[in-house]
Amino acid sequence: MPTESQAHRAERFLAMHRGPNILVLPNAWDAASARILETAGFGAIATTSAGVAATYGYPDGERIGRAGMLEAIARIASAVSVPVTADVEAGYGTSVADVEETARGVLAAGAIGMNLEDADHHSLFDLAPQVAKVQAVRKVAEEAGIPLVINARTDVYLLKIGAPESRFDEAVRRANAYHDAGADCLFVPGVRDAETIGKLAHAIHGPINILAVSGTPSTAELQKLGVARVSVGSGPMRATLSLLRRIAEELRTRGTYTSFTDPGVISHADLNRMLEH
Amino acid sequence: MPTESQAHRAERFLAMHRGPNILVLPNAWDAASARILETAGFGAIATTSAGVAATYGYPDGERIGRAGMLEAIARIASAVSVPVTADVEAGYGTSVADVEETARGVLAAGAIGMNLEDADHHSLFDLAPQVAKVQAVRKVAEEAGIPLVINARTDVYLLKIGAPESRFDEAVRRANAYHDAGADCLFVPGVRDAETIGKLAHAIHGPINILAVSGTPSTAELQKLGVARVSVGSGPMRATLSLLRRIAEELRTRGTYTSFTDPGVISHADLNRMLEH
Repeated sequence: MPTESQAHRAERFLAMHRGPNILVLPNAWDAASARILETAGFGAIATTSAGVAATYGYPDGERIGRAGMLEAIARIASAVSVPVTADVEAGYGTSVADVEETARGVLAAGAIGMNLEDADHHSLFDLAPQVAKVQAVRKVAEEAGIPLVINARTDVYLLKIGAPESRFDEAVRRANAYHDAGADCLFVPGVRDAETIGKLAHAIHGPINILAVSGTPSTAELQKLGVARVSVGSGPMRATLSLLRRIAEELRTRGTYTSFTDPGVISHADLNRMLEH
Repeated sequence: MPTESQAHRAERFLAMHRGPNILVLPNAWDAASARILETAGFGAIATTSAGVAATYGYPDGERIGRAGMLEAIARIASAVSVPVTADVEAGYGTSVADVEETARGVLAAGAIGMNLEDADHHSLFDLAPQVAKVQAVRKVAEEAGIPLVINARTDVYLLKIGAPESRFDEAVRRANAYHDAGADCLFVPGVRDAETIGKLAHAIHGPINILAVSGTPSTAELQKLGVARVSVGSGPMRATLSLLRRIAEELRTRGTYTSFTDPGVISHADLNRMLEH
Protein backbone atom coordinates (compact mmCIF):
# COMPACT_ATOMS: atom_id res chain seq x y z
CA MET A 1 0.00 0.00 0.00
CA PRO A 2 1.47 3.39 -0.95
CA THR A 3 3.03 5.45 1.82
CA GLU A 4 1.06 8.53 0.93
CA SER A 5 -2.27 6.86 1.51
CA GLN A 6 -1.02 5.37 4.76
CA ALA A 7 0.22 8.79 5.87
CA HIS A 8 -3.17 10.26 5.04
CA ARG A 9 -4.94 7.55 6.99
CA ALA A 10 -2.68 8.27 9.98
CA GLU A 11 -3.52 11.97 9.77
CA ARG A 12 -7.24 11.24 9.59
CA PHE A 13 -6.94 8.95 12.59
CA LEU A 14 -4.99 11.51 14.59
CA ALA A 15 -7.65 14.14 13.81
CA MET A 16 -10.29 11.83 15.33
CA HIS A 17 -8.59 12.43 18.70
CA ARG A 18 -9.17 16.17 18.38
CA GLY A 19 -12.74 16.26 17.12
CA PRO A 20 -15.74 17.49 19.06
CA ASN A 21 -16.81 13.88 19.64
CA ILE A 22 -15.06 11.17 21.59
CA LEU A 23 -13.37 8.56 19.38
CA VAL A 24 -15.13 5.25 20.06
CA LEU A 25 -12.66 2.61 18.98
CA PRO A 26 -13.70 -1.06 18.97
CA ASN A 27 -11.06 -3.79 18.95
CA ALA A 28 -10.89 -6.55 16.32
CA TRP A 29 -9.03 -9.85 16.58
CA ASP A 30 -9.21 -11.14 13.02
CA ALA A 31 -10.33 -10.07 9.56
CA ALA A 32 -13.95 -11.12 10.05
CA SER A 33 -14.40 -9.18 13.29
CA ALA A 34 -12.74 -6.16 11.68
CA ARG A 35 -15.16 -6.30 8.74
CA ILE A 36 -18.13 -6.58 11.10
CA LEU A 37 -16.96 -3.48 12.97
CA GLU A 38 -16.32 -1.54 9.77
CA THR A 39 -19.72 -2.53 8.41
CA ALA A 40 -21.31 -1.41 11.69
CA GLY A 41 -20.12 2.12 10.92
CA PHE A 42 -16.97 2.64 12.96
CA GLY A 43 -14.51 5.01 11.32
CA ALA A 44 -11.41 3.38 12.79
CA ILE A 45 -10.54 0.05 14.36
CA ALA A 46 -8.03 -1.05 16.98
CA THR A 47 -6.71 -4.56 17.48
CA THR A 48 -6.70 -6.47 20.76
CA SER A 49 -3.52 -8.32 21.67
CA ALA A 50 -5.36 -10.75 23.95
CA GLY A 51 -7.89 -11.48 21.22
CA VAL A 52 -5.32 -11.95 18.47
CA ALA A 53 -3.18 -14.13 20.73
CA ALA A 54 -6.18 -16.31 21.60
CA THR A 55 -7.05 -16.91 17.95
CA TYR A 56 -3.47 -18.17 17.54
CA GLY A 57 -3.71 -20.31 20.69
CA TYR A 58 -1.57 -18.20 23.02
CA PRO A 59 -2.30 -16.47 26.32
CA ASP A 60 -1.88 -12.69 26.29
CA GLY A 61 1.48 -11.17 27.19
CA GLU A 62 3.73 -11.28 24.09
CA ARG A 63 3.76 -15.09 23.96
CA ILE A 64 2.58 -14.97 20.35
CA GLY A 65 5.79 -13.13 19.43
CA ARG A 66 6.35 -10.18 17.16
CA ALA A 67 6.06 -12.02 13.83
CA GLY A 68 2.76 -13.73 14.65
CA MET A 69 1.23 -10.55 15.99
CA LEU A 70 2.32 -8.47 12.99
CA GLU A 71 1.02 -11.10 10.57
CA ALA A 72 -2.39 -10.93 12.25
CA ILE A 73 -2.35 -7.13 12.25
CA ALA A 74 -1.52 -7.06 8.54
CA ARG A 75 -4.45 -9.38 7.82
CA ILE A 76 -6.79 -7.12 9.80
CA ALA A 77 -5.45 -3.93 8.19
CA SER A 78 -5.85 -5.31 4.70
CA ALA A 79 -9.40 -6.51 5.38
CA VAL A 80 -10.79 -3.01 5.98
CA SER A 81 -10.59 0.48 4.49
CA VAL A 82 -10.71 2.39 7.76
CA PRO A 83 -7.55 3.21 9.73
CA VAL A 84 -6.30 0.40 11.97
CA THR A 85 -4.24 0.94 15.12
CA ALA A 86 -2.24 -1.97 16.47
CA ASP A 87 -2.04 -3.35 19.97
CA VAL A 88 1.58 -4.47 20.08
CA GLU A 89 1.76 -4.73 23.87
CA ALA A 90 5.15 -3.54 25.19
CA GLY A 91 6.80 -3.84 21.78
CA TYR A 92 8.13 -7.42 21.81
CA GLY A 93 11.49 -7.10 23.47
CA THR A 94 13.11 -5.07 26.19
CA SER A 95 15.49 -2.91 24.16
CA VAL A 96 14.90 0.28 22.20
CA ALA A 97 16.00 -1.63 19.08
CA ASP A 98 13.29 -4.24 19.70
CA VAL A 99 10.63 -1.55 19.94
CA GLU A 100 11.96 0.17 16.80
CA GLU A 101 11.71 -3.12 14.90
CA THR A 102 8.14 -3.54 16.12
CA ALA A 103 7.23 0.01 15.06
CA ARG A 104 8.65 -0.58 11.58
CA GLY A 105 6.67 -3.83 11.46
CA VAL A 106 3.47 -2.03 12.45
CA LEU A 107 3.92 0.40 9.55
CA ALA A 108 4.79 -2.44 7.15
CA ALA A 109 1.60 -4.21 8.27
CA GLY A 110 -0.42 -1.22 7.10
CA ALA A 111 -1.46 0.03 10.53
CA ILE A 112 -1.33 3.75 11.29
CA GLY A 113 -1.17 3.68 15.07
CA MET A 114 0.25 1.59 17.87
CA ASN A 115 -0.04 1.11 21.60
CA LEU A 116 3.06 0.90 23.73
CA GLU A 117 2.73 -0.45 27.28
CA ASP A 118 5.05 0.50 30.13
CA ALA A 119 4.83 -2.82 31.97
CA ASP A 120 5.31 -6.54 31.45
CA HIS A 121 1.91 -7.52 32.91
CA HIS A 122 3.52 -7.69 36.38
CA SER A 123 5.60 -4.61 37.09
CA LEU A 124 6.24 -1.20 35.55
CA PHE A 125 9.33 -0.49 33.49
CA ASP A 126 11.54 2.36 34.67
CA LEU A 127 10.44 5.69 33.28
CA ALA A 128 13.63 6.81 31.50
CA PRO A 129 14.04 3.76 29.23
CA GLN A 130 10.30 3.80 28.50
CA VAL A 131 10.56 7.46 27.45
CA ALA A 132 13.47 6.49 25.21
CA LYS A 133 11.26 3.85 23.54
CA VAL A 134 8.50 6.36 22.85
CA GLN A 135 11.06 8.74 21.36
CA ALA A 136 12.44 5.93 19.22
CA VAL A 137 9.01 5.04 17.86
CA ARG A 138 8.39 8.70 17.04
CA LYS A 139 11.69 8.75 15.14
CA VAL A 140 10.87 5.55 13.22
CA ALA A 141 7.58 7.12 12.16
CA GLU A 142 9.24 10.37 11.11
CA GLU A 143 11.81 8.50 9.05
CA ALA A 144 8.99 6.60 7.35
CA GLY A 145 7.09 9.81 6.67
CA ILE A 146 3.99 8.46 8.37
CA PRO A 147 2.54 10.26 11.40
CA LEU A 148 2.04 6.99 13.29
CA VAL A 149 -0.39 7.65 16.15
CA ILE A 150 1.39 6.55 19.30
CA ASN A 151 -0.91 5.53 22.13
CA ALA A 152 1.39 5.30 25.15
CA ARG A 153 -0.10 3.24 27.91
CA THR A 154 0.66 3.34 31.57
CA ASP A 155 -0.37 0.38 33.69
CA VAL A 156 -0.11 2.10 37.08
CA TYR A 157 -3.84 1.58 37.73
CA LEU A 158 -4.26 -1.72 35.88
CA LEU A 159 -1.50 -3.41 37.87
CA LYS A 160 -2.38 -1.53 41.09
CA ILE A 161 1.18 -0.27 41.45
CA GLY A 162 2.08 1.45 44.72
CA ALA A 163 -0.30 2.78 47.38
CA PRO A 164 -3.75 3.66 45.99
CA GLU A 165 -3.31 7.35 46.86
CA SER A 166 -0.02 7.50 44.93
CA ARG A 167 -1.38 6.15 41.64
CA PHE A 168 -2.92 9.30 40.25
CA ASP A 169 0.30 11.29 40.49
CA GLU A 170 2.39 8.44 39.11
CA ALA A 171 0.03 7.85 36.17
CA VAL A 172 0.00 11.56 35.32
CA ARG A 173 3.79 11.84 35.67
CA ARG A 174 4.29 8.92 33.31
CA ALA A 175 1.61 9.96 30.81
CA ASN A 176 3.03 13.48 30.58
CA ALA A 177 6.56 12.14 30.14
CA TYR A 178 5.34 9.97 27.26
CA HIS A 179 3.50 12.93 25.78
CA ASP A 180 6.66 15.01 25.93
CA ALA A 181 8.51 12.12 24.26
CA GLY A 182 6.18 12.22 21.28
CA ALA A 183 3.12 10.13 22.18
CA ASP A 184 -0.12 11.37 20.60
CA CYS A 185 -2.53 9.78 23.07
CA LEU A 186 -2.14 8.52 26.61
CA PHE A 187 -3.85 5.28 27.59
CA VAL A 188 -4.72 4.69 31.25
CA PRO A 189 -6.55 1.36 31.57
CA GLY A 190 -7.85 0.20 34.94
CA VAL A 191 -9.69 3.40 35.92
CA ARG A 192 -13.47 3.34 36.07
CA ASP A 193 -14.66 6.04 38.42
CA ALA A 194 -15.81 9.22 36.74
CA GLU A 195 -14.12 11.59 39.16
CA THR A 196 -10.65 10.10 38.68
CA ILE A 197 -11.14 9.89 34.91
CA GLY A 198 -12.10 13.56 34.77
CA LYS A 199 -9.07 14.55 36.84
CA LEU A 200 -6.77 12.48 34.64
CA ALA A 201 -8.16 14.11 31.50
CA HIS A 202 -7.35 17.52 32.97
CA ALA A 203 -3.94 16.70 34.42
CA ILE A 204 -2.60 14.84 31.37
CA HIS A 205 -1.38 17.17 28.65
CA GLY A 206 -2.54 15.12 25.64
CA PRO A 207 -5.69 13.25 24.62
CA ILE A 208 -6.45 10.31 26.89
CA ASN A 209 -7.75 6.81 26.13
CA ILE A 210 -9.96 4.95 28.61
CA LEU A 211 -10.66 1.20 28.48
CA ALA A 212 -14.36 0.36 28.70
CA VAL A 213 -15.13 -2.50 31.07
CA SER A 214 -18.07 -3.34 33.32
CA GLY A 215 -18.96 -0.16 35.21
CA THR A 216 -17.11 2.32 33.00
CA PRO A 217 -19.13 5.53 32.33
CA SER A 218 -20.89 5.56 28.94
CA THR A 219 -19.11 7.02 25.94
CA ALA A 220 -21.22 10.21 26.26
CA GLU A 221 -20.23 10.59 29.92
CA LEU A 222 -16.57 9.95 29.09
CA GLN A 223 -16.78 12.66 26.45
CA LYS A 224 -18.12 15.11 29.04
CA LEU A 225 -15.25 14.15 31.34
CA GLY A 226 -12.77 15.19 28.65
CA VAL A 227 -11.79 11.74 27.42
CA ALA A 228 -10.66 11.73 23.77
CA ARG A 229 -10.80 8.01 23.02
CA VAL A 230 -12.44 4.90 24.43
CA SER A 231 -11.53 1.35 23.43
CA VAL A 232 -12.91 -2.00 24.54
CA GLY A 233 -9.92 -4.33 24.65
CA SER A 234 -10.65 -8.04 24.48
CA GLY A 235 -14.17 -7.69 25.94
CA PRO A 236 -16.10 -8.28 22.71
CA MET A 237 -13.82 -11.17 21.72
CA ARG A 238 -14.32 -12.80 25.12
CA ALA A 239 -18.08 -12.25 24.80
CA THR A 240 -18.11 -14.14 21.49
CA LEU A 241 -16.16 -17.02 23.03
CA SER A 242 -18.67 -17.09 25.86
CA LEU A 243 -21.48 -17.37 23.32
CA LEU A 244 -19.62 -20.28 21.75
CA ARG A 245 -19.43 -21.89 25.18
CA ARG A 246 -23.22 -21.62 25.50
CA ILE A 247 -23.68 -23.01 21.96
CA ALA A 248 -21.40 -25.92 22.85
CA GLU A 249 -23.29 -26.56 26.07
CA GLU A 250 -26.65 -26.63 24.27
CA LEU A 251 -25.29 -28.92 21.59
CA ARG A 252 -23.68 -31.32 24.04
CA THR A 253 -26.39 -31.50 26.68
CA ARG A 254 -29.67 -30.88 24.84
CA GLY A 255 -28.57 -31.82 21.33
CA THR A 256 -30.28 -28.80 19.79
CA TYR A 257 -29.12 -25.84 17.70
CA THR A 258 -31.21 -22.83 18.67
CA SER A 259 -28.30 -20.70 19.95
CA PHE A 260 -26.60 -20.67 16.54
CA THR A 261 -29.60 -20.81 14.21
CA ASP A 262 -31.84 -18.01 15.45
CA PRO A 263 -33.02 -15.55 12.80
CA GLY A 264 -30.54 -12.88 13.96
CA VAL A 265 -27.57 -14.97 12.88
CA ILE A 266 -25.79 -13.68 9.77
CA SER A 267 -26.29 -16.14 6.90
CA HIS A 268 -23.51 -17.94 5.06
CA ALA A 269 -24.37 -15.91 1.94
CA ASP A 270 -24.30 -12.58 3.82
CA LEU A 271 -20.99 -13.48 5.48
CA ASN A 272 -19.49 -14.20 2.06
CA ARG A 273 -20.87 -10.95 0.66
CA MET A 274 -19.38 -9.00 3.56
CA LEU A 275 -15.96 -10.45 2.72
CA GLU A 276 -16.23 -9.76 -1.03
CA HIS A 277 -14.73 -6.31 -1.19
CA MET B 1 4.00 -34.84 16.35
CA PRO B 2 4.87 -38.55 16.05
CA THR B 3 3.06 -40.55 13.38
CA GLU B 4 2.09 -43.27 15.81
CA SER B 5 0.15 -40.92 18.01
CA GLN B 6 -1.51 -39.37 14.98
CA ALA B 7 -2.43 -42.84 13.70
CA HIS B 8 -3.89 -43.67 17.07
CA ARG B 9 -5.90 -40.47 17.13
CA ALA B 10 -7.24 -41.31 13.66
CA GLU B 11 -8.27 -44.77 14.85
CA ARG B 12 -10.01 -43.35 17.91
CA PHE B 13 -11.82 -40.84 15.72
CA LEU B 14 -12.91 -43.52 13.24
CA ALA B 15 -14.24 -45.62 16.13
CA MET B 16 -16.45 -42.67 17.17
CA HIS B 17 -18.39 -43.24 13.92
CA ARG B 18 -19.22 -46.79 14.97
CA GLY B 19 -20.15 -46.30 18.62
CA PRO B 20 -23.61 -46.67 20.08
CA ASN B 21 -23.93 -42.87 20.23
CA ILE B 22 -24.02 -40.38 17.40
CA LEU B 23 -20.78 -38.42 17.01
CA VAL B 24 -21.61 -34.76 17.71
CA LEU B 25 -18.84 -32.82 16.05
CA PRO B 26 -18.67 -29.03 16.51
CA ASN B 27 -16.65 -26.92 14.10
CA ALA B 28 -13.86 -24.55 15.16
CA TRP B 29 -12.40 -21.68 13.14
CA ASP B 30 -9.33 -20.75 15.20
CA ALA B 31 -7.34 -21.95 18.18
CA ALA B 32 -9.50 -20.14 20.73
CA SER B 33 -12.77 -21.59 19.45
CA ALA B 34 -11.18 -25.05 19.35
CA ARG B 35 -10.07 -24.74 22.98
CA ILE B 36 -13.55 -23.60 24.02
CA LEU B 37 -15.07 -26.66 22.32
CA GLU B 38 -12.51 -29.03 23.84
CA THR B 39 -13.05 -27.52 27.28
CA ALA B 40 -16.82 -27.94 26.82
CA GLY B 41 -16.25 -31.69 26.67
CA PHE B 42 -16.31 -32.62 22.99
CA GLY B 43 -14.11 -35.60 22.18
CA ALA B 44 -13.29 -34.49 18.64
CA ILE B 45 -13.42 -31.25 16.68
CA ALA B 46 -13.96 -30.39 13.03
CA THR B 47 -12.93 -27.20 11.30
CA THR B 48 -15.22 -24.98 9.21
CA SER B 49 -13.84 -23.74 5.91
CA ALA B 50 -16.21 -20.76 5.85
CA GLY B 51 -15.22 -19.82 9.39
CA VAL B 52 -11.49 -20.18 8.82
CA ALA B 53 -11.71 -18.25 5.54
CA ALA B 54 -13.61 -15.43 7.26
CA THR B 55 -10.99 -15.07 9.99
CA TYR B 56 -8.45 -14.60 7.19
CA GLY B 57 -10.71 -12.15 5.34
CA TYR B 58 -11.88 -14.39 2.50
CA PRO B 59 -15.31 -15.56 1.39
CA ASP B 60 -15.83 -19.34 1.47
CA GLY B 61 -15.02 -21.40 -1.62
CA GLU B 62 -11.25 -22.07 -1.69
CA ARG B 63 -10.38 -18.38 -2.04
CA ILE B 64 -8.09 -18.64 0.99
CA GLY B 65 -5.96 -21.17 -0.90
CA ARG B 66 -4.42 -24.41 0.27
CA ALA B 67 -1.50 -22.91 2.20
CA GLY B 68 -3.61 -20.50 4.24
CA MET B 69 -6.18 -23.15 5.06
CA LEU B 70 -3.57 -25.71 6.10
CA GLU B 71 -1.77 -23.14 8.26
CA ALA B 72 -5.03 -22.44 10.10
CA ILE B 73 -5.79 -26.15 10.46
CA ALA B 74 -2.32 -26.78 11.92
CA ARG B 75 -2.87 -24.01 14.46
CA ILE B 76 -6.21 -25.52 15.48
CA ALA B 77 -4.82 -29.07 15.64
CA SER B 78 -1.90 -28.01 17.82
CA ALA B 79 -4.16 -26.05 20.19
CA VAL B 80 -6.12 -29.10 21.35
CA SER B 81 -5.48 -32.71 22.41
CA VAL B 82 -8.61 -34.19 20.84
CA PRO B 83 -8.67 -35.44 17.23
CA VAL B 84 -9.23 -32.70 14.63
CA THR B 85 -10.79 -33.31 11.22
CA ALA B 86 -10.20 -30.74 8.51
CA ASP B 87 -12.67 -29.06 6.19
CA VAL B 88 -10.55 -28.69 3.07
CA GLU B 89 -13.48 -28.06 0.72
CA ALA B 90 -12.95 -29.76 -2.66
CA GLY B 91 -9.22 -30.18 -2.09
CA TYR B 92 -7.78 -26.94 -3.56
CA GLY B 93 -7.38 -27.76 -7.20
CA THR B 94 -9.12 -29.80 -9.86
CA SER B 95 -6.61 -32.59 -10.40
CA VAL B 96 -5.97 -35.77 -8.47
CA ALA B 97 -2.45 -34.48 -7.78
CA ASP B 98 -3.91 -31.32 -6.20
CA VAL B 99 -6.08 -33.37 -3.88
CA GLU B 100 -3.15 -35.64 -3.00
CA GLU B 101 -1.09 -32.61 -2.05
CA THR B 102 -3.94 -31.34 0.10
CA ALA B 103 -4.30 -34.72 1.83
CA ARG B 104 -0.58 -34.82 2.58
CA GLY B 105 -0.88 -31.26 3.92
CA VAL B 106 -3.79 -32.26 6.16
CA LEU B 107 -1.69 -35.03 7.70
CA ALA B 108 1.30 -32.71 8.07
CA ALA B 109 -0.98 -30.21 9.83
CA GLY B 110 -1.73 -32.84 12.48
CA ALA B 111 -5.35 -33.47 11.49
CA ILE B 112 -6.66 -37.04 11.35
CA GLY B 113 -9.64 -36.60 9.04
CA MET B 114 -10.69 -34.55 6.05
CA ASN B 115 -13.80 -33.61 4.11
CA LEU B 116 -13.79 -33.83 0.34
CA GLU B 117 -16.59 -32.06 -1.55
CA ASP B 118 -17.84 -33.14 -4.96
CA ALA B 119 -18.78 -29.67 -6.19
CA ASP B 120 -17.34 -26.20 -6.67
CA HIS B 121 -20.19 -24.39 -4.84
CA HIS B 122 -22.11 -24.17 -8.14
CA SER B 123 -22.16 -27.53 -9.92
CA LEU B 124 -21.25 -31.13 -9.20
CA PHE B 125 -18.04 -32.69 -10.47
CA ASP B 126 -18.37 -35.78 -12.64
CA LEU B 127 -18.53 -38.94 -10.58
CA ALA B 128 -15.56 -40.86 -12.06
CA PRO B 129 -12.87 -38.21 -11.41
CA GLN B 130 -14.30 -37.60 -7.94
CA VAL B 131 -14.06 -41.31 -7.18
CA ALA B 132 -10.45 -41.20 -8.36
CA LYS B 133 -9.77 -38.36 -5.90
CA VAL B 134 -11.22 -40.33 -2.98
CA GLN B 135 -9.10 -43.34 -3.97
CA ALA B 136 -6.04 -41.08 -4.18
CA VAL B 137 -6.63 -39.68 -0.68
CA ARG B 138 -7.02 -43.21 0.68
CA LYS B 139 -3.69 -44.13 -0.92
CA VAL B 140 -1.92 -41.04 0.51
CA ALA B 141 -3.19 -42.03 3.96
CA GLU B 142 -2.06 -45.67 3.55
CA GLU B 143 1.38 -44.57 2.43
CA ALA B 144 1.61 -42.31 5.50
CA GLY B 145 0.50 -45.13 7.77
CA ILE B 146 -2.33 -43.02 9.19
CA PRO B 147 -5.94 -44.15 8.81
CA LEU B 148 -7.10 -40.67 7.80
CA VAL B 149 -10.89 -40.52 8.20
CA ILE B 150 -12.26 -39.46 4.83
CA ASN B 151 -15.61 -37.69 4.99
CA ALA B 152 -16.74 -37.61 1.34
CA ARG B 153 -19.40 -34.99 0.79
CA THR B 154 -21.99 -34.87 -1.94
CA ASP B 155 -23.66 -31.55 -2.61
CA VAL B 156 -26.64 -32.90 -4.57
CA TYR B 157 -29.09 -31.57 -1.95
CA LEU B 158 -27.13 -28.48 -0.89
CA LEU B 159 -26.90 -27.17 -4.46
CA LYS B 160 -30.38 -28.46 -5.39
CA ILE B 161 -28.99 -30.36 -8.37
CA GLY B 162 -31.53 -31.85 -10.79
CA ALA B 163 -35.23 -32.41 -10.23
CA PRO B 164 -36.16 -32.73 -6.53
CA GLU B 165 -37.39 -36.29 -6.99
CA SER B 166 -34.05 -37.32 -8.54
CA ARG B 167 -31.85 -36.10 -5.70
CA PHE B 168 -32.21 -39.01 -3.32
CA ASP B 169 -31.04 -41.57 -5.88
CA GLU B 170 -28.19 -39.36 -7.08
CA ALA B 171 -26.97 -38.62 -3.55
CA VAL B 172 -27.07 -42.32 -2.66
CA ARG B 173 -25.33 -43.31 -5.89
CA ARG B 174 -22.54 -40.84 -5.26
CA ALA B 175 -22.18 -41.60 -1.55
CA ASN B 176 -21.93 -45.31 -2.21
CA ALA B 177 -19.38 -44.77 -4.97
CA TYR B 178 -17.26 -42.71 -2.55
CA HIS B 179 -17.66 -45.40 0.09
CA ASP B 180 -16.48 -48.06 -2.35
CA ALA B 181 -13.53 -45.79 -3.20
CA GLY B 182 -12.39 -45.73 0.42
CA ALA B 183 -14.35 -42.98 2.16
CA ASP B 184 -15.10 -43.69 5.83
CA CYS B 185 -18.09 -41.40 6.21
CA LEU B 186 -20.52 -39.87 3.72
CA PHE B 187 -21.59 -36.28 4.22
CA VAL B 188 -24.93 -35.13 2.78
CA PRO B 189 -25.51 -31.48 3.74
CA GLY B 190 -28.72 -29.72 2.75
CA VAL B 191 -31.17 -32.36 4.03
CA ARG B 192 -33.34 -31.51 7.01
CA ASP B 193 -36.45 -33.66 6.92
CA ALA B 194 -36.35 -36.69 9.16
CA GLU B 195 -37.88 -39.07 6.66
CA THR B 196 -35.29 -38.39 3.94
CA ILE B 197 -32.46 -38.49 6.48
CA GLY B 198 -33.61 -41.88 7.72
CA LYS B 199 -33.85 -43.24 4.18
CA LEU B 200 -30.36 -41.90 3.34
CA ALA B 201 -28.92 -43.58 6.44
CA HIS B 202 -30.36 -46.89 5.30
CA ALA B 203 -29.51 -46.62 1.61
CA ILE B 204 -25.93 -45.41 2.06
CA HIS B 205 -23.51 -48.23 2.87
CA GLY B 206 -21.28 -46.32 5.31
CA PRO B 207 -21.80 -43.97 8.26
CA ILE B 208 -23.46 -40.71 7.28
CA ASN B 209 -22.84 -37.12 8.40
CA ILE B 210 -25.69 -34.59 8.58
CA LEU B 211 -25.20 -30.82 8.83
CA ALA B 212 -27.23 -29.23 11.63
CA VAL B 213 -29.00 -26.04 10.60
CA SER B 214 -32.26 -24.38 11.62
CA GLY B 215 -34.92 -27.09 11.60
CA THR B 216 -32.62 -30.13 11.63
CA PRO B 217 -33.83 -32.89 13.99
CA SER B 218 -32.04 -32.95 17.37
CA THR B 219 -28.92 -35.06 17.78
CA ALA B 220 -30.98 -37.70 19.66
CA GLU B 221 -33.49 -37.85 16.81
CA LEU B 222 -30.70 -38.08 14.23
CA GLN B 223 -29.22 -40.96 16.18
CA LYS B 224 -32.57 -42.79 16.06
CA LEU B 225 -32.67 -42.19 12.31
CA GLY B 226 -29.35 -44.00 11.94
CA VAL B 227 -27.09 -40.95 11.47
CA ALA B 228 -23.51 -41.58 12.63
CA ARG B 229 -22.21 -38.02 12.79
CA VAL B 230 -23.63 -34.51 12.98
CA SER B 231 -21.60 -31.35 12.44
CA VAL B 232 -22.56 -27.69 12.58
CA GLY B 233 -20.55 -26.00 9.82
CA SER B 234 -20.07 -22.27 10.14
CA GLY B 235 -23.24 -21.74 12.20
CA PRO B 236 -21.55 -21.11 15.55
CA MET B 237 -18.91 -18.87 13.94
CA ARG B 238 -21.62 -16.82 12.25
CA ALA B 239 -23.52 -16.63 15.54
CA THR B 240 -20.46 -15.13 17.25
CA LEU B 241 -20.08 -12.56 14.47
CA SER B 242 -23.74 -11.69 14.91
CA LEU B 243 -23.15 -11.11 18.61
CA LEU B 244 -20.26 -8.82 17.68
CA ARG B 245 -22.63 -6.93 15.40
CA ARG B 246 -25.01 -6.40 18.35
CA ILE B 247 -22.10 -5.33 20.57
CA ALA B 248 -20.99 -2.86 17.90
CA GLU B 249 -24.51 -1.51 17.54
CA GLU B 250 -24.87 -0.96 21.29
CA LEU B 251 -21.47 0.71 21.48
CA ARG B 252 -22.10 2.97 18.50
CA THR B 253 -25.69 3.99 19.18
CA ARG B 254 -26.11 3.87 22.97
CA GLY B 255 -22.47 4.18 23.98
CA THR B 256 -22.75 1.42 26.57
CA TYR B 257 -21.03 -1.91 27.14
CA THR B 258 -23.56 -4.33 28.60
CA SER B 259 -23.44 -6.85 25.74
CA PHE B 260 -19.76 -7.58 26.31
CA THR B 261 -19.47 -7.09 30.06
CA ASP B 262 -22.27 -9.23 31.47
CA PRO B 263 -21.23 -11.66 34.23
CA GLY B 264 -21.39 -14.63 31.82
CA VAL B 265 -18.44 -13.32 29.78
CA ILE B 266 -15.22 -15.27 30.26
CA SER B 267 -12.66 -13.09 32.04
CA HIS B 268 -9.27 -12.10 30.65
CA ALA B 269 -7.62 -14.23 33.34
CA ASP B 270 -9.78 -17.27 32.56
CA LEU B 271 -9.15 -16.90 28.82
CA ASN B 272 -5.41 -16.88 29.47
CA ARG B 273 -5.68 -19.92 31.75
CA MET B 274 -7.62 -21.80 29.08
CA LEU B 275 -4.78 -21.18 26.63
CA GLU B 276 -2.00 -22.20 29.05
CA HIS B 277 -1.76 -25.87 28.30
